[in-house]
Amino acid sequence: MFSGAHVALYPMTDRFVPVILDGIAAMKHDRNHLRIETDDLSTLLVGPPEDLFPAMRDLLVGAARSGTHVVLSAHVSRGCPGEPDDPACHSAELAGGLAPASERIEAARAAVAAARSTGQSIAAQIALHPLGTAGHMDEIGHCIAFLRESGVHDRAKHFCTKLGGDAGPVFAAMAEAFVRFGDPAGHVTMTLTASANSPTGG
Amino acid sequence: MFSGAHVALYPMTDRFVPVILDGIAAMKHDRNHLRIETDDLSTLLVGPPEDLFPAMRDLLVGAARSGTHVVLSAHVSRGCPGEPDDPACHSAELAGGLAPASERIEAARAAVAAARSTGQSIAAQIALHPLGTAGHMDEIGHCIAFLRESGVHDRAKHFCTKLGGDAGPVFAAMAEAFVRFGDPAGHVTMTLTASANSPTGG
Repeated sequence: MFSGAHVALYPMTDRFVPVILDGIAAMKHDRNHLRIETDDLSTLLVGPPEDLFPAMRDLLVGAARSGTHVVLSAHVSRGCPGEPDDPACHSAELAGGLAPASERIEAARAAVAAARSTGQSIAAQIALHPLGTAGHMDEIGHCIAFLRESGVHDRAKHFCTKLGGDAGPVFAAMAEAFVRFGDPAGHVTMTLTASANSPTGG
Repeated sequence: MFSGAHVALYPMTDRFVPVILDGIAAMKHDRNHLRIETDDLSTLLVGPPEDLFPAMRDLLVGAARSGTHVVLSAHVSRGCPGEPDDPACHSAELAGGLAPASERIEAARAAVAAARSTGQSIAAQIALHPLGTAGHMDEIGHCIAFLRESGVHDRAKHFCTKLGGDAGPVFAAMAEAFVRFGDPAGHVTMTLTASANSPTGG
């Protein structure tokens, strides 16, 4: 399995470079577990989902501490058949087959409830893409059912679901959506946007 | 069919509001064809792909004219079975069945070659998600084959393809990728990032 995320941080300030560096400094601990490649468009993080989402959370929260309006945008992928198998991406979260949806929803809710708060409020939206299967809308439906009960649901939007709350449980909910919905051995991607300190709320 | 895009513009400046307004002013003509809804995370554009991509191009190019480093991030969707059928989304580009890949690649290349230049150079990356089918990697492969020959190919990356050049042909290539690959009647999404005036190139 190969898994990773293309991540970009957009601070809406002339001082965008130091704000990004603050975010990277906050992600220091997470970096030990990830392979990282940067170019002018995004930073690729390679590693298992259980390391990717905390790293993205720490990156955004670290950058937001300045009070600047900052957005993190990411494209997360697992199980792409076109990518090489990488032992560094082995995930305990993706072992076994698909449990019944009700069990997965319950486990995902419990994980969000146990998530540590960060003190940083964010707004976010996500879309999940379980690929290579005719039953993708069923899995998207189960994922939405979980998000509605996750405690960080804001509202349904066209093509995506909006979340809001402390960055801790919101990133936990996004991680749970990514690992528990769609076949654990399948090809699944997620598009996510998370915003802090927006002047228009969120 | 229902089609649309969640679009966000991120100007890396304290003056982000006027830069966004410049982009919106440049999109004025395109707005006539689209339904538009905005919240604190993104702006939803609803309409056929042939209107969505020019609108996104004009939005980015209009905002970039200030010289500010600005990024447009979008999540584009067509044919989602969970969305209502909307006559305003009817697309001449999505009539008929899937032609042989070689014909589609040739038609897509011709469309990019005919695209008008804008005078604004950009870097971009896209990932295409043909959903609801076991054959999604074949369609992604055809799309990548087109992008390699599109004249605006930069390089392959994990999970996505990087493009570069004038915003005119680059947005044309992204539009062609979106309408010609994946079943015309199917559910297809695209994640795209486009950057102008980056201090690190692109």
